[in-house]
Amino acid sequence: MSEHLDYTLFYWPEILGRGEFVRLCFEASGVEYKEQNDVAELSKLLSNKEVAGIAAPHFAVPVLGVRVVGDAASASKKARVDTAADVKDGGKTHYISQTPVILSFLAPRLGLLGDAEKLEGLERDVAVAQIQQLCATALDLNNETHDTHHPISVSSYYEDQQEEAKKRAADFRTNRLPKFLQVFEVALRDNGAGPDQKTQGASRMWASRTTVADLTVFQVVDGLQFAFPRCMQKLKQGGKYNHVFQLHDQIKQELKEYLESDRRLPYSNGVFRHYPELDQDE
Amino acid sequence: MSEHLDYTLFYWPEILGRGEFVRLCFEASGVEYKEQNDVAELSKLLSNKEVAGIAAPHFAVPVLGVRVVGDAASASKKARVDTAADVKDGGKTHYISQTPVILSFLAPRLGLLGDAEKLEGLERDVAVAQIQQLCATALDLNNETHDTHHPISVSSYYEDQQEEAKKRAADFRTNRLPKFLQVFEVALRDNGAGPDQKTQGASRMWASRTTVADLTVFQVVDGLQFAFPRCMQKLKQGGKYNHVFQLHDQIKQELKEYLESDRRLPYSNGVFRHYPELDQDE
Repeated sequence: MSEHLDYTLFYWPEILGRGEFVRLCFEASGVEYKEQNDVAELSKLLSNKEVAGIAAPHFAVPVLGVRVVGDAASASKKARVDTAADVKDGGKTHYISQTPVILSFLAPRLGLLGDAEKLEGLERDVAVAQIQQLCATALDLNNETHDTHHPISVSSYYEDQQEEAKKRAADFRTNRLPKFLQVFEVALRDNGAGPDQKTQGASRMWASRTTVADLTVFQVVDGLQFAFPRCMQKLKQGGKYNHVFQLHDQIKQELKEYLESDRRLPYSNGVFRHYPELDQDE
Repeated sequence: MSEHLDYTLFYWPEILGRGEFVRLCFEASGVEYKEQNDVAELSKLLSNKEVAGIAAPHFAVPVLGVRVVGDAASASKKARVDTAADVKDGGKTHYISQTPVILSFLAPRLGLLGDAEKLEGLERDVAVAQIQQLCATALDLNNETHDTHHPISVSSYYEDQQEEAKKRAADFRTNRLPKFLQVFEVALRDNGAGPDQKTQGASRMWASRTTVADLTVFQVVDGLQFAFPRCMQKLKQGGKYNHVFQLHDQIKQELKEYLESDRRLPYSNGVFRHYPELDQDE
């Protein structure tokens, strides 16, 4: 794509959360982006009031701001210019929210569709949909992880729903988590491509090159190892999800520079929290 | 798009569930589709084993089967033919799962992008993303509705988690449901387009023509009116979400023929269940 875009990620300060899935796309592809973590600015955006250029209101962050810069902006100016500020800065800023939608928007722009890039027409659309499908499944696992510590109310404290959390976490460890890992294991094992296109070397969620689906699965597995270290260790030792843990290790290596930098936030009070009582039955 | 596609929806028999979001796309656009509700066939698909043509494994139904037929199939044959049956029937069948991904795949093919169809380049991609964002938010509300009756474990009976369900449903009615409805209300009120493009007449989630986002919000609101009649009546009377209830009524009218036919299944044991004890505090 010939457009030159300027990206801003709007997300809460100091937590990895859902913003991390977006950050990983930029970090893996080496494309520059800014972050806006000012709570007053985020609240203004989420109030869905008097913010120019919001076509669709947002339920939550992350929100991605996208603005055309450079030559492409001149072309855009003719079509849609809303304010004097837009003219001065380049094009109009567009806002997109919902993590899976942001990832779908970014993947083709950041080179994160892997071997699907080589396809055309329907074959490409199907491949892109299948990559999105794997992302959506990983993000569902992320949501279910969140609900292990907040099964009753997102607006109440963990301590006020701890008993219910223990029950939900037990079901999560026993039934849900293995079911999700199994889907990722099959995707990696069968390697996306048909038998005739079996590739050597790296196994990825869709064929053999890293896509947004690999980054998303990496982050969920990484977070789960922080939140449920005992359970994840047991699953790793069980040997049924070797491809998943291998993917985690390989992506960790690919992203080494970022993950060891101070740009990578520590796990804290976000989706992935380590409560020992949720990691095992008493 | 010039391709001729043959669509099959794989979904559980006798429930609306998440399959209904896909059905509404076909019914609203008048495009033919088949359903496969045979539990043995679905189980085979979900086992992710030995089913030719699955590039990405499925966590759950709905799954959409897509096959090229007619002239386009001849072209496709040259590129990828896996079995003799494929040659006989036309092209290879592709499988896509995850409701939001299926809706995103279908929307441009079934004419369900409304005014966004008129745009090009980045403007179009952003508009499509914003329509997907509104769909994703409606589907999140669908998921949270499900969790009101299954807050602890999807594999256990409601009766075994009824006490937790009452707590979660109370939080849902008080905090979550109004927050979701507010997003849809703002989208409808501001009507998607900028102030200069304000349209008269029908208010839709994105500008003024019906998109997949309107169908998705319709179905969730319709299901909520079945599951939480008392709560929804109170919210309707409160007058804060007039555009949302008006959208529901208008889409209901647009889909009248389908909704009154026996193709529309009754609400039963799916996402939307009416348990009076969850609809109000005792």
